[in-house]
Amino acid sequence: MSVADDTEERHPTLALDDTVHQRVRLGILAVAREAESVEFAFLKQELGLTDGNLSRHLKVLEDSGLVAVTKGYAGRRPRTWVTLTSGGAEALDRELRALRELVRRLDAAGPPPA
Amino acid sequence: MSVADDTEERHPTLALDDTVHQRVRLGILAVAREAESVEFAFLKQELGLTDGNLSRHLKVLEDSGLVAVTKGYAGRRPRTWVTLTSGGAEALDRELRALRELVRRLDAAGPPPA
Repeated sequence: MSVADDTEERHPTLALDDTVHQRVRLGILAVAREAESVEFAFLKQELGLTDGNLSRHLKVLEDSGLVAVTKGYAGRRPRTWVTLTSGGAEALDRELRALRELVRRLDAAGPPPA
Repeated sequence: MSVADDTEERHPTLALDDTVHQRVRLGILAVAREAESVEFAFLKQELGLTDGNLSRHLKVLEDSGLVAVTKGYAGRRPRTWVTLTSGGAEALDRELRALRELVRRLDAAGPPPA
């Protein structure tokens, strides 16, 4: 009892996960992926965030197991380090696969009808 | 008085706009771009949405001038059509440029550190 639509590809945005896709969190995961760990102040500057906004999104990512947050010291100054977990790396890879597929699909469709 | 960071590229996620980037709205804009206009029921099915969820996101897109929503009839059945505006097409293009740049940057960085 299948219909034609059953055989079509699922739309690539259905493979996006809001936890990872949200603009600020996608930025955090992307920056964290480029280093072993990144400092809170660096993320804040790189992504143009306030302390509160960065903390809020880090909490969501930490609660989802996508990053680990570690507090420590550089000399006597307190520092917070953010590290992508293996689950976070996998989640970011899934996001990037879906984004590539979305871009590919829109490129294949050509410009919008006039 | 410039510092080294001033010469670095802005992180690509800073070019993302939440109105367009949000998962459901990105899906609506992407599907609408592939046709002259798309029917509400088609969008709903293609993106796996409820009436309420689709209506809510269409309202955001319409209020931002990114889509036009038209009500009409197919025979005696009421139909709602969604059309990407030129502003919507430009906003989606900006989003896709930022996503391509994000993917390019992460591909260039290679796999995450072990």
